[in-house]
Amino acid sequence: MKYEVLPVLVFQTDWTFKEGAVASTYGVVRSVSRDVEIFTATHEIPQFDIWSASYRLHQYVSFWPKGTVFVSVVDPGVGTDRKACVALTEDGYYIVTPDNGALTHLAATSGIAEVREIDETVNRLRKTEGTSVFHGRDLFGFCAAKLAAGIISYEEVGPSYDVNEIVKLPIHQPVCGEGFAEGIIEIDDPNFGNLWTNIPTAKLFEAGFAYGDDLHVTLRHNDQVIYERNTRFDTVFGTVEKGEPVIYNNELMNASLAVNQGSFLQQFSSGFGPEYTIRFEKKKED
Amino acid sequence: MKYEVLPVLVFQTDWTFKEGAVASTYGVVRSVSRDVEIFTATHEIPQFDIWSASYRLHQYVSFWPKGTVFVSVVDPGVGTDRKACVALTEDGYYIVTPDNGALTHLAATSGIAEVREIDETVNRLRKTEGTSVFHGRDLFGFCAAKLAAGIISYEEVGPSYDVNEIVKLPIHQPVCGEGFAEGIIEIDDPNFGNLWTNIPTAKLFEAGFAYGDDLHVTLRHNDQVIYERNTRFDTVFGTVEKGEPVIYNNELMNASLAVNQGSFLQQFSSGFGPEYTIRFEKKKED
Amino acid sequence: MKYEVLPVLVFQTDWTFKEGAVASTYGVVRSVSRDVEIFTATHEIPQFDIWSASYRLHQYVSFWPKGTVFVSVVDPGVGTDRKACVALTEDGYYIVTPDNGALTHLAATSGIAEVREIDETVNRLRKTEGTSVFHGRDLFGFCAAKLAAGIISYEEVGPSYDVNEIVKLPIHQPVCGEGFAEGIIEIDDPNFGNLWTNIPTAKLFEAGFAYGDDLHVTLRHNDQVIYERNTRFDTVFGTVEKGEPVIYNNELMNASLAVNQGSFLQQFSSGFGPEYTIRFEKKKED
Repeated sequence: MKYEVLPVLVFQTDWTFKEGAVASTYGVVRSVSRDVEIFTATHEIPQFDIWSASYRLHQYVSFWPKGTVFVSVVDPGVGTDRKACVALTEDGYYIVTPDNGALTHLAATSGIAEVREIDETVNRLRKTEGTSVFHGRDLFGFCAAKLAAGIISYEEVGPSYDVNEIVKLPIHQPVCGEGFAEGIIEIDDPNFGNLWTNIPTAKLFEAGFAYGDDLHVTLRHNDQVIYERNTRFDTVFGTVEKGEPVIYNNELMNASLAVNQGSFLQQFSSGFGPEYTIRFEKKKED
Repeated sequence: MKYEVLPVLVFQTDWTFKEGAVASTYGVVRSVSRDVEIFTATHEIPQFDIWSASYRLHQYVSFWPKGTVFVSVVDPGVGTDRKACVALTEDGYYIVTPDNGALTHLAATSGIAEVREIDETVNRLRKTEGTSVFHGRDLFGFCAAKLAAGIISYEEVGPSYDVNEIVKLPIHQPVCGEGFAEGIIEIDDPNFGNLWTNIPTAKLFEAGFAYGDDLHVTLRHNDQVIYERNTRFDTVFGTVEKGEPVIYNNELMNASLAVNQGSFLQQFSSGFGPEYTIRFEKKKED
Repeated sequence: MKYEVLPVLVFQTDWTFKEGAVASTYGVVRSVSRDVEIFTATHEIPQFDIWSASYRLHQYVSFWPKGTVFVSVVDPGVGTDRKACVALTEDGYYIVTPDNGALTHLAATSGIAEVREIDETVNRLRKTEGTSVFHGRDLFGFCAAKLAAGIISYEEVGPSYDVNEIVKLPIHQPVCGEGFAEGIIEIDDPNFGNLWTNIPTAKLFEAGFAYGDDLHVTLRHNDQVIYERNTRFDTVFGTVEKGEPVIYNNELMNASLAVNQGSFLQQFSSGFGPEYTIRFEKKKED
């Protein structure tokens, strides 16, 4: 089944608004077409962090109408031989991005139905060929605008290639059983300082835990224990005192750690990635 | 008199753009309707700072067309028993917010004509019931989109309740007379480092002061004096030297303190709130 | 030749989103007209930095459709006798700004065809006359909205004045010849930490250099050498190792300095402005 392309463009990058990169890219879009909507998802992906780019797409793409065109530009290898592509997910979203790992999570969750390499000879902004460092403006933004505006069809983006060739970063699977669940801190919420594990909250229920229980949590950075404590598992932050840690079910239905009106991330000097492992098990006596 | 609801949505939160919360919420709105405009007022309200949320609404709501729908989500008690509501101000604006004090200033200035509790059974995004931590996306954003799009009427938001039950934070009134004016630093301008008092500039004129006068200013943090000085009262920053303090009439017509091309906030280690009191009186000899 | 004004407004300021200034200004625009598009170019111009305001306009204006109306408010002299103006560039863009130097680069590149002083008696938001500190909302935003919406013509902005009277900051010209090129760091990319010189990359080719060469670079802050090294000149960052410096052709076709996946700005404690001078010459033996 094919999804109609919508004239709705959603951007995420690691550019910030500190200089004119966003403004020039949005200008290119508006010059291509007056009829395409332009949304900022975020321009604050951590610099060069392809993992975060991939995770954020996973976090929000499915909440948009099918046919929406997303442009994700976190591109440390700009101008090298990494492909510039437009992927179509199985559930009908178009993702314009360097093929550098940014499609990792969507490939694992939505699935990728088709992927095409952008043909620079027709889908690159004219007169920018002299510079190779701003594909966000000259290639991704320009091509996405033409696609979203209906000036080119998806087929006209460029030649398709095997979806199995798409670059993917390693995803870690949790290990769960009766009375325990183990996984990693897959990403953080850098604003509120929460940690999101790769363990579906449903797995905690299957392990025999229920809201209201205290669970024994062990969080390690490599071999070092950075948090080990009985911690309340509940539906909302407000069931523990301000400043106290809590395990909760986050917006993507994964087990997560927060400090009520505080920052778990800062308070326990944590981070995210496979070197941060977590284990939930039954409450232990103090 | 009833005001027609406009398909214009304006968001303010304490989420920042550091992760995908804004993007998923805007996606929900666009999925509800292709015809609703989406504006970012700010996603940089200080975390959990309901007072600032309330003050900022007061600062900008009235500049928008009547019928505009505002969504304010600063919600430290998300998922607890605080109400989720949509208020209608006397002057015709709809405010979608947790009822946690965010309506304090609008209630005091515009007045609240009516308030309704959002009925989660019909106005919550389906399939999100398993999580209780992201009402911005699942409840406030979704319900506001339906309202702004005309899919539900204001009455269909949910049952109305007594406007006198709306949660309000304490507002401090200034005390003014011949030759003096006393009040508090009600809020700051955290960008330019200006301090905004709760004293209408008109009160300074009534006290006998005029633009061009030097006034004696005493600023205290609790009992400690953090600024005491004769300070020029004028219309623009540029009437004092760069780096010098000045009293001016701010954009909401309140007496305010700035440093010309500097930051009063930083230079004098000040803040805002009722513990920061200020007194203006006649110039004293040095 | 006259260009039709488009209902497209693009804002840049030094206000940030930390308080309600942007929200109230956008509200004024939407109150003037429901049909004008509102874009954020950036609200993160460094405070009071007119040079950056000017440079950023130069960086992105030409990528927008002709007839777009830009509002630039970096206005340390708000309320003083600096003029409030709307300039029309030779290539068809309208710039609404304090006439304080913000037109420097556009005047030098696009050229200014005409400039008009905003007539406050008709193009200022009513009931804001009591305050003189927020022309962004009350004058520039309001007047720009009327212009973009077609409520007033360009002529109705106010009286024209001599384009030669426009305030301009000094622009430094590079000095280039066989085997060398000298100039200044004209601006930075504060996000990625790159330095952009005022030397067109074409001048490096004319000097006899080619992509793939190592060039001897000397960067001085006043008399102090802060970087002196043979450095690769290439098309993309990825031709040097991560963490290594590289000379590249930036998006405006000027010679620039970066560290691959790092920050040249931070690594070498550099900045921008005429006190930062740079010389490229032939590779020297180590």
